[in-house]
Amino acid sequence: MGNSYGKIFTISTFGESHGPAIGVVIDGCPAGLEIDETFIQSELSRRKPGQSKITTQRKEDDTYKILSGVFEGKTTGTPIAIVIENTDQRSKDYGHIATTFRPSHADYTYETKYGVRDYRGGGRSSARETAARVAAGAIAKLLLNKHGITIQAFVSQVGEIKAPHYSEMNLNETEENIVRCPDTKTAEEMINLIDQVRLDRDTIGGVVTCVIRNTPVGLGEPVFDKLHAELGKAMLSINAVKGFEYGSGFEGIKLRGSEHNDEFYNDGGRIRTKTNLSGGVQGGISNGEDIYFNVAFKPVATIMQDQQTVDNEGKEVTVSGKGRHDPCVVPRAVPIVEAMAALVLADFLLQSKNNKI
Amino acid sequence: MGNSYGKIFTISTFGESHGPAIGVVIDGCPAGLEIDETFIQSELSRRKPGQSKITTQRKEDDTYKILSGVFEGKTTGTPIAIVIENTDQRSKDYGHIATTFRPSHADYTYETKYGVRDYRGGGRSSARETAARVAAGAIAKLLLNKHGITIQAFVSQVGEIKAPHYSEMNLNETEENIVRCPDTKTAEEMINLIDQVRLDRDTIGGVVTCVIRNTPVGLGEPVFDKLHAELGKAMLSINAVKGFEYGSGFEGIKLRGSEHNDEFYNDGGRIRTKTNLSGGVQGGISNGEDIYFNVAFKPVATIMQDQQTVDNEGKEVTVSGKGRHDPCVVPRAVPIVEAMAALVLADFLLQSKNNKI
Amino acid sequence: MGNSYGKIFTISTFGESHGPAIGVVIDGCPAGLEIDETFIQSELSRRKPGQSKITTQRKEDDTYKILSGVFEGKTTGTPIAIVIENTDQRSKDYGHIATTFRPSHADYTYETKYGVRDYRGGGRSSARETAARVAAGAIAKLLLNKHGITIQAFVSQVGEIKAPHYSEMNLNETEENIVRCPDTKTAEEMINLIDQVRLDRDTIGGVVTCVIRNTPVGLGEPVFDKLHAELGKAMLSINAVKGFEYGSGFEGIKLRGSEHNDEFYNDGGRIRTKTNLSGGVQGGISNGEDIYFNVAFKPVATIMQDQQTVDNEGKEVTVSGKGRHDPCVVPRAVPIVEAMAALVLADFLLQSKNNKI
Amino acid sequence: MGNSYGKIFTISTFGESHGPAIGVVIDGCPAGLEIDETFIQSELSRRKPGQSKITTQRKEDDTYKILSGVFEGKTTGTPIAIVIENTDQRSKDYGHIATTFRPSHADYTYETKYGVRDYRGGGRSSARETAARVAAGAIAKLLLNKHGITIQAFVSQVGEIKAPHYSEMNLNETEENIVRCPDTKTAEEMINLIDQVRLDRDTIGGVVTCVIRNTPVGLGEPVFDKLHAELGKAMLSINAVKGFEYGSGFEGIKLRGSEHNDEFYNDGGRIRTKTNLSGGVQGGISNGEDIYFNVAFKPVATIMQDQQTVDNEGKEVTVSGKGRHDPCVVPRAVPIVEAMAALVLADFLLQSKNNKI
Repeated sequence: MGNSYGKIFTISTFGESHGPAIGVVIDGCPAGLEIDETFIQSELSRRKPGQSKITTQRKEDDTYKILSGVFEGKTTGTPIAIVIENTDQRSKDYGHIATTFRPSHADYTYETKYGVRDYRGGGRSSARETAARVAAGAIAKLLLNKHGITIQAFVSQVGEIKAPHYSEMNLNETEENIVRCPDTKTAEEMINLIDQVRLDRDTIGGVVTCVIRNTPVGLGEPVFDKLHAELGKAMLSINAVKGFEYGSGFEGIKLRGSEHNDEFYNDGGRIRTKTNLSGGVQGGISNGEDIYFNVAFKPVATIMQDQQTVDNEGKEVTVSGKGRHDPCVVPRAVPIVEAMAALVLADFLLQSKNNKI
Repeated sequence: MGNSYGKIFTISTFGESHGPAIGVVIDGCPAGLEIDETFIQSELSRRKPGQSKITTQRKEDDTYKILSGVFEGKTTGTPIAIVIENTDQRSKDYGHIATTFRPSHADYTYETKYGVRDYRGGGRSSARETAARVAAGAIAKLLLNKHGITIQAFVSQVGEIKAPHYSEMNLNETEENIVRCPDTKTAEEMINLIDQVRLDRDTIGGVVTCVIRNTPVGLGEPVFDKLHAELGKAMLSINAVKGFEYGSGFEGIKLRGSEHNDEFYNDGGRIRTKTNLSGGVQGGISNGEDIYFNVAFKPVATIMQDQQTVDNEGKEVTVSGKGRHDPCVVPRAVPIVEAMAALVLADFLLQSKNNKI
Repeated sequence: MGNSYGKIFTISTFGESHGPAIGVVIDGCPAGLEIDETFIQSELSRRKPGQSKITTQRKEDDTYKILSGVFEGKTTGTPIAIVIENTDQRSKDYGHIATTFRPSHADYTYETKYGVRDYRGGGRSSARETAARVAAGAIAKLLLNKHGITIQAFVSQVGEIKAPHYSEMNLNETEENIVRCPDTKTAEEMINLIDQVRLDRDTIGGVVTCVIRNTPVGLGEPVFDKLHAELGKAMLSINAVKGFEYGSGFEGIKLRGSEHNDEFYNDGGRIRTKTNLSGGVQGGISNGEDIYFNVAFKPVATIMQDQQTVDNEGKEVTVSGKGRHDPCVVPRAVPIVEAMAALVLADFLLQSKNNKI
Repeated sequence: MGNSYGKIFTISTFGESHGPAIGVVIDGCPAGLEIDETFIQSELSRRKPGQSKITTQRKEDDTYKILSGVFEGKTTGTPIAIVIENTDQRSKDYGHIATTFRPSHADYTYETKYGVRDYRGGGRSSARETAARVAAGAIAKLLLNKHGITIQAFVSQVGEIKAPHYSEMNLNETEENIVRCPDTKTAEEMINLIDQVRLDRDTIGGVVTCVIRNTPVGLGEPVFDKLHAELGKAMLSINAVKGFEYGSGFEGIKLRGSEHNDEFYNDGGRIRTKTNLSGGVQGGISNGEDIYFNVAFKPVATIMQDQQTVDNEGKEVTVSGKGRHDPCVVPRAVPIVEAMAALVLADFLLQSKNNKI
């Protein structure tokens, strides 16, 4: 019962990686929004497997079909159902894990929780599910665009290699390399590292940073649904995420209040802050400054090496690395982070319509 | 509309710091739970102001009253309403901020979002609201105790001073010093640092670490309501929190998959993992190992120094530090972190009843 | 977990009839709404016991206190908590039902469901709980008033005595007699009947009709949250209600489509219907015509006569009628019906803000 | 945003009558439930158009496909997505209503609410959407069957023709005639009436009665989510429904409490009631007796006659009856009523797992 997200702009995703299809139903999207179908496809293509040498070589075109809720190019206010068929389902690749629990995967927890699991490709726990989020997020982006809000994520760290601060890069250049880091030099280092890790039949973690600009003051619903709390949940719900921080984040704990506080000033009639350690959020509500946050991804659990584990009868066995997997998840995670951010923002934008009479 | 939390075990909090009272309504608590009223009070007392030299000197006894849902010492399955009156309301302390936006507070965002705000003591954005969470969390803990689940938080970092890893300390000793760090030596350093910061009329940040033991396998509801995603949201909804990480967290990004994966083994019939970089959660579901996570708190925004800011007409003004505030929030945040963790766990425990037919 | 209602304008009620207090937390009320405290009290007084010879002689002043969410006379956008203390708690009146299940009461079902119950005065199942709804509904009415929407309920039937169609009466005269029927002659007959029933130590059922005027076109959220479906649920959630019909209702089934359809016409630029068998709702959405519906109330279960029943050990026993109860519930139900209608309408009004971009 | 239903066993439906497909996503169905695919199809076939001379002659096979959530014949605890393609889409039949508002249809309210509508066949407001409910309801029935709960609906009234009380008929014979009334003689009269109405190019209303047996004591969640309140909402959300009553219903208002109360007795160890005017529900909670209720359906709005109306520019025009429609909706509504009842019961059954510790 945890497959829906959002209060007004809500999505419900479904599907296993090796079933007939995955998909999403979006409810609560206002009527009259023009749907740019090419844009939705381009977002899916940013996430799809097989797009470069540093991603999995699985091939899924991730072609989607809209089943409802759009008429003559516009949303009608009724639920928008989107389906993406699973085409490259080499289920035989997964026979070896039907009864074996892969380390740091969800095999053991799913089987214990539900008593049954679709073991093929991880079933529901596969990151394939995030394609549905990207499709829904694309529609959320179209809605946010109407309000001038932009969302840009990029890879800011792979292993120990870090990109410069976001303000020192041109985020429009993120898509110009395969690792999706807007700093060319860092990108090259990251690509080399991922390539080496791949040759080592291993994997490595990384960080995706996301920047949201032009948000109006007032998004976020304290006390529980604070803007950053909902962003945090949204990001932590993405496969392989281990941490979330916004604004000054974990580094901020070392500062003193006198260093950390963002003093206000009047910028030609608009109230702004001189610094932005708050990350664009104060008291759980957007203050109009850039919202920025980091999302930590662990190294992918599937490695091309033998590992010790147990099977579903408790017998200790060896599981070998098979299949086609990403040596590092962050390049393909960039559009997923953006999609989840868009879903959070779109929902809060609609909720904010009722803040005042 | 963001003042409720939980799906089955749900809480709705209300109240401003200087109104007549704050409180909480708990719905969905199963009937038949014995209510230990002394325990609820002791939890509130761990959070209350004025408890030591390193916390605010405001005095609130935080005495609570149960208005409903408990009959002859047991829950009846009907909503449990708890009210805590506000007694030490020196509203005059706040006259100076009626029209001025304090840096890194919620004054500006609340006023812009709602067009009106109760400025006294921060109103709804005051951390006083968390007393209601602690009361509700105490009842959640009573429910979890029935299942043997324990939740223990402690201060693991203040400024740059860090405690040892949780496995190297006795978490039962957390309450033995005023900073709530179970390592005596580290605790002393932390207390000295906070005291120095207080004398500097400044504030400093810190980290609360939380460890949850004896959780059954199977808690958490993927794909959106993953156990760690919900814990993350719960923690990020606490005032002053800037980040959340679980298991290997942000450090885990530097590791390779072969280092990071937790291999399974058979521990006398019980399936366990050799390491626990997963932090007790795999695929968003508890795996029976210790769940542990870190929560980053920024330095308190209220400092006893002059700061530049603007008023509600956009005029640039100076705001002086007044009132009685915490130089460091983490000692008092410990019971709040535990309470929110308890609420998340209790809710997932009840949800899990319907995983299988 | 069924003690909250609404999606945006949400209420959570709490309290038992003989506990310290009952109350409600309203979340999602927009900021800036002026709160007329006298109006809230007057609504509560319309519902309170002891107001006339045909209602129970229990005395409860139903004085309320607002604990939060209102500052300087206006809502602040934060939760509004309202508490009503229980003052006339003659708990000793209820000792005889501590272990006995009163016929057609909720004693047996509550005890079986929860394993425990607060038997005093019916506890949570007491209609006293509806006072909290009336207080919340009063605030919803204040919000609706801003939009010109009016809600007027009245007693249209007691036993077999029926009032004329609502269009033939002046609904502003409802409060001019104690039975709350705007037709003087019918009112007298109803009062006489109720008085006779009371002398017979018995009770009788009735119908409350409600008329909502000046609703904008577009309220209601198909397919499940149709306007009339939500009104139906809201009404059926009131104690003692057995049926709900809107527009032509149960009588409409006898008509042919050619008789039942409401043809549209252009009324000086405004699209209207010639007839209104639709009851102001088409496809689950308001069409701008009068919304009207009937709510059937059974005879009150508490009668001043001996009845056969069983106790909580299954033993067959006689339960005697004791206490102070209403011979007919509908006069006091009028403000409750209005309150629930107001809550439904206010919620849909807020939801409708996001129908279009 | 009103296209989802249920708290634990939740459904989200999507689709327009003339789009590519309709469907439903079910979340919260426990894992391990065997899915009888033939049963689901048979339920859809009971609802499908073209099944007899008294229903519409449109042809839709209503073949469904499960996209997710079922593995090797059993539910896996993940969302179950079901899609039903629209095959008989004679959209040209609907060109005449692209700009015209049919009387007592949802054309006008949808267009005004959303600013745009898919006019083909009523789009989202078409009763075709209920096929998705029937598919989901079939799965709910499979879950309820595990607990011995049975749900049987039948046609109890068409126009003025009424069937005997349900206790005087064999409800297993409902499917033996095309009008779905278990009393053969009444069924013949009903069929003749509907046939006459059809020849008159008109339509007529009716009543579906539903009986639920073997419900455990304890289903329903007061105070708002009372069992009958939720059943009422579920029924009122079905197209063309005008009223709902349970137990004694509207007739009960004429009785005195001494006649209406259901006295308890001990039936060999099981507590039962001598009469059942309560309709199996007391205080909003099932008491173990038969739950029964009536659902009133208006005459279908589409008639094969000319009617006066206006177009979307306010111009008064004549709309002619075209297309293929039901002269009376109740025979095909029987499986829909059962499906909605099953969804309500399944949800409450799961919710009840947490009533007690």
